Amino acid sequence: MGRLTVHEAVGHAYQGFMKAFSRRDPTAVSQYFTLDGQLLPPQSGPVDGRPAIAAFWQAVIDMGITAVTLETVEVFDHGDSAYEVGRYSLAAAGGEPVDHGKYVVIWRLEAGDWKIHRDIWSTSVPPSA
Amino acid sequence: MGRLTVHEAVGHAYQGFMKAFSRRDPTAVSQYFTLDGQLLPPQSGPVDGRPAIAAFWQAVIDMGITAVTLETVEVFDHGDSAYEVGRYSLAAAGGEPVDHGKYVVIWRLEAGDWKIHRDIWSTSVPPSA
Repeated sequence: MGRLTVHEAVGHAYQGFMKAFSRRDPTAVSQYFTLDGQLLPPQSGPVDGRPAIAAFWQAVIDMGITAVTLETVEVFDHGDSAYEVGRYSLAAAGGEPVDHGKYVVIWRLEAGDWKIHRDIWSTSVPPSA
Repeated sequence: MGRLTVHEAVGHAYQGFMKAFSRRDPTAVSQYFTLDGQLLPPQSGPVDGRPAIAAFWQAVIDMGITAVTLETVEVFDHGDSAYEVGRYSLAAAGGEPVDHGKYVVIWRLEAGDWKIHRDIWSTSVPPSA
């Protein structure tokens, strides 16, 4: 097997992330983060570590979000670390669009696997008129 | 003169950034970004390039924001690129707090100077009750 590029590895990880989210398994989602991974979500302080990250995604599921879509725009590879800019969208039951925006993820190679180390995003939806 | 560490260079750049903002000079603020720098602001699509970045900061000034404070939490150096996680706060006249949150900046060494290449942030203020 050839070694994946970071871009391919990121795509592969997101396939797993999105599937784990769709089957409502936030603990599986949290495995895509480093052990000391951190979310930096809007309207909240930082969320540190896999148990807290799993609880965050459980709260998103509990809000009625059924699908997260993540699309890479650019990836810069720095060997054992990389950063990625992308677009996200969130949908509720029946595919109803709920939110969309952009994100920056810092990836880190941990025990041979690319994991999300820092994750920050912001909506692109303007304030309601 | 010794070569600055990335952490020192970031602190130095922010001193200039914050001063330029305080003197209401968004064009000077935009010089701290790479030529193809990008902001990823909440409630907006991406803002690309120095003229658009200057216009963004002008709009922030026009909203009555008089001071931006930027505080580095962590920096990871990758040679000609680095990423930084930090905290920001915004204040209006008289130092009145307006917003605070966290950010991720991707830095790039451009023509020997560390410049902001990608900049994304999110408020830490919870939704109003």
